[in-house]
Amino acid sequence: MIPVDRGVGMSVTPIGCPAQNPIKEHACMSDVATPSRSRFSTLYSRKAQALPDAPRMAAAKGTPPRISFIYGFPDAASLPGQQVAEATARAMGHSADKALQYGGVLGVPVLIDELLAKLKADQKIEAEPENVIITSGASQAVELIMEALLDRGDIVLAEQPTWSGFNVGVNNMGGVVVPIAIDEQGTDVDLLEAELTRYRDAGTPAKFIYVIPNFQNPTGVTMTLARRKRIIELAEAFDTLIMEDDAYFDLRYEGDFLPTIYSMDPNQRTIYLGTFSKIMGAGMRLGWAVAPPELITKLSILKMEGGSGIFASYVAAEWVPKHLTGHIAELRTIYRQRRDIMLAALERHMPDGATWTRPDGGFFIWVTLPEGLNANELVTMSRERGVDFLPGSACYAGPGGENTLRLSFSFATDEQIPEGIEILGQIISDELREQGR
Amino acid sequence: MIPVDRGVGMSVTPIGCPAQNPIKEHACMSDVATPSRSRFSTLYSRKAQALPDAPRMAAAKGTPPRISFIYGFPDAASLPGQQVAEATARAMGHSADKALQYGGVLGVPVLIDELLAKLKADQKIEAEPENVIITSGASQAVELIMEALLDRGDIVLAEQPTWSGFNVGVNNMGGVVVPIAIDEQGTDVDLLEAELTRYRDAGTPAKFIYVIPNFQNPTGVTMTLARRKRIIELAEAFDTLIMEDDAYFDLRYEGDFLPTIYSMDPNQRTIYLGTFSKIMGAGMRLGWAVAPPELITKLSILKMEGGSGIFASYVAAEWVPKHLTGHIAELRTIYRQRRDIMLAALERHMPDGATWTRPDGGFFIWVTLPEGLNANELVTMSRERGVDFLPGSACYAGPGGENTLRLSFSFATDEQIPEGIEILGQIISDELREQGR
Repeated sequence: MIPVDRGVGMSVTPIGCPAQNPIKEHACMSDVATPSRSRFSTLYSRKAQALPDAPRMAAAKGTPPRISFIYGFPDAASLPGQQVAEATARAMGHSADKALQYGGVLGVPVLIDELLAKLKADQKIEAEPENVIITSGASQAVELIMEALLDRGDIVLAEQPTWSGFNVGVNNMGGVVVPIAIDEQGTDVDLLEAELTRYRDAGTPAKFIYVIPNFQNPTGVTMTLARRKRIIELAEAFDTLIMEDDAYFDLRYEGDFLPTIYSMDPNQRTIYLGTFSKIMGAGMRLGWAVAPPELITKLSILKMEGGSGIFASYVAAEWVPKHLTGHIAELRTIYRQRRDIMLAALERHMPDGATWTRPDGGFFIWVTLPEGLNANELVTMSRERGVDFLPGSACYAGPGGENTLRLSFSFATDEQIPEGIEILGQIISDELREQGR
Repeated sequence: MIPVDRGVGMSVTPIGCPAQNPIKEHACMSDVATPSRSRFSTLYSRKAQALPDAPRMAAAKGTPPRISFIYGFPDAASLPGQQVAEATARAMGHSADKALQYGGVLGVPVLIDELLAKLKADQKIEAEPENVIITSGASQAVELIMEALLDRGDIVLAEQPTWSGFNVGVNNMGGVVVPIAIDEQGTDVDLLEAELTRYRDAGTPAKFIYVIPNFQNPTGVTMTLARRKRIIELAEAFDTLIMEDDAYFDLRYEGDFLPTIYSMDPNQRTIYLGTFSKIMGAGMRLGWAVAPPELITKLSILKMEGGSGIFASYVAAEWVPKHLTGHIAELRTIYRQRRDIMLAALERHMPDGATWTRPDGGFFIWVTLPEGLNANELVTMSRERGVDFLPGSACYAGPGGENTLRLSFSFATDEQIPEGIEILGQIISDELREQGR
């Protein structure tokens, strides 16, 4: 129900849900009163009836936390406002008649050209315009793909933990997420094969495999080259598709770039998802899917609203060739430093028994607390002291992850990070002490 | 599959469909080969399998028609490019950190405030922020509402002819459009009551009634006050909802503004849809739904991508208070003149036996040819002579309307309109002569 990192407001407390878990509303859906509470319940679709009646997030109440580690939000200070204003002036100067008009459902051609050039240069993805659809953020592409592939009861395989919005989306569609563990090398491919086999043999083969190979959300883990190749083989062997969500590709702070699954897949079973959200501005609401043309066609037909963000696309098409490369370089410097500051602060302030990942890029560090601690129970306490974070269980399709949390280092400033981590460390230490450990 | 007036590109010939009907791909879906042609057919959802494999529109080939009467596109010359550039500069000056960041799923609060003020002043709609969701054009709101209300096989009642994208959307969802005739007073409310009764008695009550009360797309007809009131009564009596699509509300060129159904509905069973597409710029991709909060909540949960057009919303929030009223006045002058020019040209060039509507606003005139003439068969001929139009059958849920066409007077210039109508008149006259009439 919520693209936590993609488009959610600043408030976090769901109404009518047990208070501890601010994100995973599905966990509390079964606690919600029956749909008969609702005036229009007889009119709702099966899908809508299964949704809670309460707003998915409460309106922001009181002061939001001063230091935010919760969302995968881009750094605010580096958002290129002035450049975007100038790009808009140029776009309006020569293309107002197109930029303010309806456009084709697949996206604005000048932006697609820029995107294809970028994908070729950086992602080593050779694609043609017929392989691309521009969407309202990559999350809309995820949604359209789910619509194209999933019927009620259908199986998808996804890393666990994973992007919480993904689990929620599958849930909305009535699909079933089969979790595949992730370790420091990425998706557990042996388990993946076992589950692919199991569901094929049961007569309900998986519709697709969802992976985030680079700096995974939420763990920060990067999938090894060997595992990427293995997933390509498995998709072919089991006649399924791969959804490669690569929102953070460009934001690598150390180590070599690894080839994208899409670029290595000889069988064209990969759908590659990316976004300008992290490298230009999330408010542009411009993401994309790269996929076989037959699939792009289906997505375009399902996308009833027509072309996404035509005005924003013309602005982006002006901004990208002039600024994208430089902006990415700037962001790498900013975020690398924030990652390092957060890692150092964790080292300093986390109690014994807590562990965390050390991502080569992206926005997230994944913290595992000593068994028995429940991150959901720390949320309120932490918010009261001005710090928020994402309880790791929000990234689980089912139960699990209670002793984990996701920390985003992208949004809080260099100064805020050590302070926020110190507060978190104190809260966790206090909790451990209370438990007599 | 196609929001004809909302977001379609400039090309019109579908691939793999009988050539004459450029819009109504569903008409040719049954002619499309079985899904087994498709490589991923076993992976597609039921919904996607039912869609054609071919792109919904062919890439533009050759020169597009010189004079276009086909789309509900705003006039190009009056698009406020310079104002939008200035509004962007202001928005970036004070709100880049928000405008380029993720935003809440319901929409940008400053834009919602502007919208609520406008709805109150003009539409006499008193609504609160919890009644509103901003969407990627009104067509996305239509889609979300369908998702919230329709299961496979569900019934909706809609005027016939109606916006072709609506019929296609219901079709995509597996729903069934029950057509209600429209006459010069709008929806035939007696027939509406009869069909509501019939489907209720059959145990499949209608999920909602879809109407376009002002300057209906495609007929240009405006629903009378009496009929608006009757529809409100019927919705209550039959425990259903009203989807009031009012994309053209502001573009009235003569006669008094009639109250919106939403503003008169004491039962709060109306969902009001509007858009900035026709009064600011379609490329902004900003529309809205106004509805009871419980429904807005469902829509927000189904809207997985998060907030629509955050950047565009901040720009619109700057532009609207300063320019909207003046721009609407300007557009009324432009479009009134075009309507009058087209009406005069029709009078002059259409052969005896052809009739047409005289809209008080909006973008469309609906032409009925003598029985026996088929507008679908005139499309290619007309395109070859540089003029395009929408065959009326594209606006029918099932068969029908073959001798009708929709002419949009919004996009072609004052100079082009008489020329295009003269060509159309010749083609129709020639066709009549060939038939020996």
